[in-house]
Amino acid sequence: MNSINHQVRLAARPSGLPKPSDWKLTTEPVPVPGPGEFLVSVSHVSIDPAMRRWMNAAHSYVEPVAIGAVMEAGAIGRVTASEHPGFPVGEYLYGDFGVQEFARSDGTGVSKLDPSLAPLPTYLGALGVTGLTAYFGLLDVARLSEGDTVVVSGAAGAVGSVAGQIAKIKGCRAIGIAGGPEKCRWIVDNLGFDAAIDYKAQDVARALPEYTPDRVDVFIDNVGGEILDAVLTRLARGARIVLSGGVSQYNAQRVSGPSNYLELIGARATMTGMITPDYADRYPEARAELAGWLREGRLTSREDVLEGGVRAFPDALLKLFAGENIGKLVLAVQ
Amino acid sequence: MNSINHQVRLAARPSGLPKPSDWKLTTEPVPVPGPGEFLVSVSHVSIDPAMRRWMNAAHSYVEPVAIGAVMEAGAIGRVTASEHPGFPVGEYLYGDFGVQEFARSDGTGVSKLDPSLAPLPTYLGALGVTGLTAYFGLLDVARLSEGDTVVVSGAAGAVGSVAGQIAKIKGCRAIGIAGGPEKCRWIVDNLGFDAAIDYKAQDVARALPEYTPDRVDVFIDNVGGEILDAVLTRLARGARIVLSGGVSQYNAQRVSGPSNYLELIGARATMTGMITPDYADRYPEARAELAGWLREGRLTSREDVLEGGVRAFPDALLKLFAGENIGKLVLAVQ
Repeated sequence: MNSINHQVRLAARPSGLPKPSDWKLTTEPVPVPGPGEFLVSVSHVSIDPAMRRWMNAAHSYVEPVAIGAVMEAGAIGRVTASEHPGFPVGEYLYGDFGVQEFARSDGTGVSKLDPSLAPLPTYLGALGVTGLTAYFGLLDVARLSEGDTVVVSGAAGAVGSVAGQIAKIKGCRAIGIAGGPEKCRWIVDNLGFDAAIDYKAQDVARALPEYTPDRVDVFIDNVGGEILDAVLTRLARGARIVLSGGVSQYNAQRVSGPSNYLELIGARATMTGMITPDYADRYPEARAELAGWLREGRLTSREDVLEGGVRAFPDALLKLFAGENIGKLVLAVQ
Repeated sequence: MNSINHQVRLAARPSGLPKPSDWKLTTEPVPVPGPGEFLVSVSHVSIDPAMRRWMNAAHSYVEPVAIGAVMEAGAIGRVTASEHPGFPVGEYLYGDFGVQEFARSDGTGVSKLDPSLAPLPTYLGALGVTGLTAYFGLLDVARLSEGDTVVVSGAAGAVGSVAGQIAKIKGCRAIGIAGGPEKCRWIVDNLGFDAAIDYKAQDVARALPEYTPDRVDVFIDNVGGEILDAVLTRLARGARIVLSGGVSQYNAQRVSGPSNYLELIGARATMTGMITPDYADRYPEARAELAGWLREGRLTSREDVLEGGVRAFPDALLKLFAGENIGKLVLAVQ
């Protein structure tokens, strides 16, 4: 077994897109678990837009990563040493293990995975937090009902691709907004969205009426900016906007708020923020349902797995913000 | 009886604040009601921020006033001639009678008033649409519960002044945001708000933590702009923002959206738009409860009644946008 733990630490708070000098690659001896602890060998790290917000100084509800600390990240790994009876060697786990090769844990916030149910990276995709965001965002926050017109931004991304598919499974109309012809083709041809709007080639506000003859009942938004503003002009009465992120704004010096927000009034519409771990006690039932759909071929989970280990993390994050991934972006660690 | 009907008509769609040339003062013979109709002699016209939105070209849910049409307005009047058995001469009514001295009506959207319950202008104040907005906004949309911290913008205005008082009646903490020391004194000393923040003299975002030690559970906003952005930084978990307007933005060339809207995510908060007439079938019960509070001295309705008749309407609207009124702005017509 490797005795060195390679890590990525936050060296400085970035302004705009993270620069190489905002990171520090460090090594440490692999930690030894004490009583009630165990050691996880990390196999895959989740690359998420929200990471950019965690890098900022404290701002209300977002807990920042300390300068010099290992960068936080949801990750998957396997127990390789254990002093904890609940987490024996060989167990596969999801947890906030950070951008490093080995993590010591006492089990807080850690959940067990069944590798026979789905490939491991899928536990960062459709069965991971992003898939669960789509699930609870649609079914709980938006109270999806059959026949709704559902619009999804970042539709070829981790949350959006699952959200559109769940909308179809539930008998809704699903319209995806994505950047570029490849993503747009994928969500329509492979995932079964009813239509795609390419925001790089089309004016979203002008394109929406064609694809949403009955306006928009539900909008799952993790992009914000001009796309949110466009959808705000097309809300059905009683529409529900679910905010799970705002990736277009995370690197902005000044966030551009939705200037069409007053449309919420005429539409009697709601914009609601969500944090998926609030639903953690219902993850097992949700994962079981999602896994069932995967098994039946009604749901596709696509992971874009980057190689290169933890040292490839800074570039992986930039790839995410450049919108270069299709499906859930994952970094293979070891 | 006067045989001439003085009217204010929309002459042009304004850009920014309405100019004198955007209006046309016209006269017509007083109309004669046909079968199933009646004639109302208008006594008071309601001056509302939303009027500015009705003056714009059609935009999604807002129905515009046609160029050349009598300016729409909620108003109070008395039946002076009738061919309608349900609305006999002498009856006091509220309806969308417009900015004119006489209106012919078939009773659509018209409700009857009891002048023995409260002075007539109060039916445009605490017992009017603005008071009902505060009532349903707090109790239905925000699902107010005892002990909540309630923040109100435009707190010395028609909606805000009633909202803060209802919050106090319901056992909540009420913080008002208003412009200038006179308004701030009035809402604390006369209306019983717990505190006031003078947005003209104080930085609202810096002042809020002092007055909201447990953060903000409910925000009734009819102002928008920097005030909405400030409150967004101070939301309690599960906070409910009720949008009943955005007066700071109605004359803007480009609406400034809330750049802190992503705070809704961390707070798991909701921003919901409302249109008060949706609750019209519950107006009688709400008016009865509000009138009871008025009678008991627990609720104060203040109307700022301008004289001058319909020709004073253009200036009255500018006075509203300058924030010069305290309480509900009303124009006495005849």
